[in-house]
Amino acid sequence: MLHLVIMAGGSGTRFWPESRRSRPKQFLTLTGEQSLLQEAARRCRPLVPADRTWVVTGAGHAQETRAQLPEVNPDHILLEPCARNTAPCLALAAVAIARQDPDAVLLVTPADHLIRPEEEFRATVSRAVATLTAHPDSSVLIGIPPTHPATGYGYIERAAPEGAGFAVERFREKPSRAVAEEFLATGRFFWNSGMFVWRVRRLLELFAQFQPAIKAGIDRLSPAWATPGWSDKLAEEFPRMPSISVDYALVEPQAQAGRAAGGLFVVPASFQWDDVGSWQSLPAVLGRDEAGNTVTGPHCGLDTQGCVVRTTADHLVATIGLRDCVVVHTPDATLVAPRDDEDALRKLVARLNELGLGGWL
Amino acid sequence: MLHLVIMAGGSGTRFWPESRRSRPKQFLTLTGEQSLLQEAARRCRPLVPADRTWVVTGAGHAQETRAQLPEVNPDHILLEPCARNTAPCLALAAVAIARQDPDAVLLVTPADHLIRPEEEFRATVSRAVATLTAHPDSSVLIGIPPTHPATGYGYIERAAPEGAGFAVERFREKPSRAVAEEFLATGRFFWNSGMFVWRVRRLLELFAQFQPAIKAGIDRLSPAWATPGWSDKLAEEFPRMPSISVDYALVEPQAQAGRAAGGLFVVPASFQWDDVGSWQSLPAVLGRDEAGNTVTGPHCGLDTQGCVVRTTADHLVATIGLRDCVVVHTPDATLVAPRDDEDALRKLVARLNELGLGGWL
Repeated sequence: MLHLVIMAGGSGTRFWPESRRSRPKQFLTLTGEQSLLQEAARRCRPLVPADRTWVVTGAGHAQETRAQLPEVNPDHILLEPCARNTAPCLALAAVAIARQDPDAVLLVTPADHLIRPEEEFRATVSRAVATLTAHPDSSVLIGIPPTHPATGYGYIERAAPEGAGFAVERFREKPSRAVAEEFLATGRFFWNSGMFVWRVRRLLELFAQFQPAIKAGIDRLSPAWATPGWSDKLAEEFPRMPSISVDYALVEPQAQAGRAAGGLFVVPASFQWDDVGSWQSLPAVLGRDEAGNTVTGPHCGLDTQGCVVRTTADHLVATIGLRDCVVVHTPDATLVAPRDDEDALRKLVARLNELGLGGWL
Repeated sequence: MLHLVIMAGGSGTRFWPESRRSRPKQFLTLTGEQSLLQEAARRCRPLVPADRTWVVTGAGHAQETRAQLPEVNPDHILLEPCARNTAPCLALAAVAIARQDPDAVLLVTPADHLIRPEEEFRATVSRAVATLTAHPDSSVLIGIPPTHPATGYGYIERAAPEGAGFAVERFREKPSRAVAEEFLATGRFFWNSGMFVWRVRRLLELFAQFQPAIKAGIDRLSPAWATPGWSDKLAEEFPRMPSISVDYALVEPQAQAGRAAGGLFVVPASFQWDDVGSWQSLPAVLGRDEAGNTVTGPHCGLDTQGCVVRTTADHLVATIGLRDCVVVHTPDATLVAPRDDEDALRKLVARLNELGLGGWL
């Protein structure tokens, strides 16, 4: 059976003041009616019913996650006692799901990406599952056909065609601009979306093979699943796991081991994908009006161009003479900043702490 | 007895979004603890007790005025049924005060100017009253020694010294920049502050002499004062009065008539004065911090200079890379605009109406 594992451990304030420590990006309604987390859960619904949907998130986000996904069994919302990157996050899901359905196939996905249209997402997943069925010991990645020489993503280099996808030649770290341009010119590279399909049984074997420390934790945790001692055991074991990403922990070693490790495949996404990494990314995602602005909520602009303006329905934002800025109103904080300067926003967040204004983070 | 008449009929949205149609500038706390109206009433308090304080304001502002000045007898808050400029406003006060104290001396002042320090204001008023005592049929103006060749104020040209002040040679309309520079070079000019001292008995004579239509209205209104029919009578008579300023209606004609009309004097103000005409004026009034910003409320600025930032205590405004802008947060509207472009703000206000967003005005 196909299970959906949503990794919703993201934190950060790149969308400050909409995102806060207590309300990271996946909980935001950046694009419409639903939050990114809600979209991540529900776009899979025709393939994966709610009772096979799992979410791994930080303990501090339990309440918000339950509130946003009331249809998901609260026992399927797995709470990380602390942040340990994506490999322990996935291990936690593997523990729970393997106990319930040892033959489970896992579709693992981040909670905070934007994907349109949903039908194409499901079509891509179906192709990935078909590839896994043909190669039961493999891992299947969903690769994004690159649209520009991005330097912010890892790249997957493909080898020979294999069913609906390709064998993976190797992984490449975030490249320089020049290298990214070379990648694109070859036509052999995909962006690494962080979405995977694999059998939970095989996943546990991969942990055993490449990450014995995590596998040891899994083995100590597993007997406690669905017992009253689960929380205490998790609080004891989870922090002892090494903080490492799935890519580094499992996928790259598997790529290096080649067919001997069951095979690694990439299936190209047929959907539009955006990781909505910053305010800067919103115009591409939400579009622009005649003045080149991307507006959510009541706005009156005079001589205002290329701006991202976001406000609540009851609060008017008026701007005069503004170019390529972001203006974000939330009930307790407002940001006015250049649209494309993520570094400055990071500095601002640090500054808030220095000034004793960290309560607004 | 000295009575204080505060002309609080001002409207307008030059401080939008803090000022609204329903809450013009005189009601705003631009500078500290008290609104400009409250300061206007209370700075005179040692000279004029609350029971000789009168406020003339628009009928729509009755509630706000009573709330801001609970110590003032509600019967002394005179309500204009419609806007008719300052001469009818003053006539209304004259009707009421002449009935109560026919020998009253009136200190007439706008409600929305900033004056510091209060002691010097009272000292100036005392000098003006002394001048009036020496010339009981005169009008005494308070003149502001000009600090720069402003083109937004009327000017008073002085003649010979007379007690604590000067006889007035003539009035000059708002001048061009070049003319204003000539005025300053002579050392004989004051800005017209809109503050006057005169006897109510003489004021009624001046209305009779120069504004017979207004005097006729006064005479029809007067018998109704302090009767149950007052409001109805006022609603009938006030709109029939011509819309004209005190300057045009009384003071300029009196200046032209010279000593024959009782004399016109100007007493120089020894206080700091600012009419706080726009956001642009706030730095001069409130000062600047090390970064050259003028901030009210919680603010975190990165690379932010020469800005006016205003927010409420519970709402953080964060700015990056902003120069010479005004950022104003209010509970239901936010403005981001160049600091020195009053025209653009006027256009914005017009635009709000066009867009059907006039509810925010």
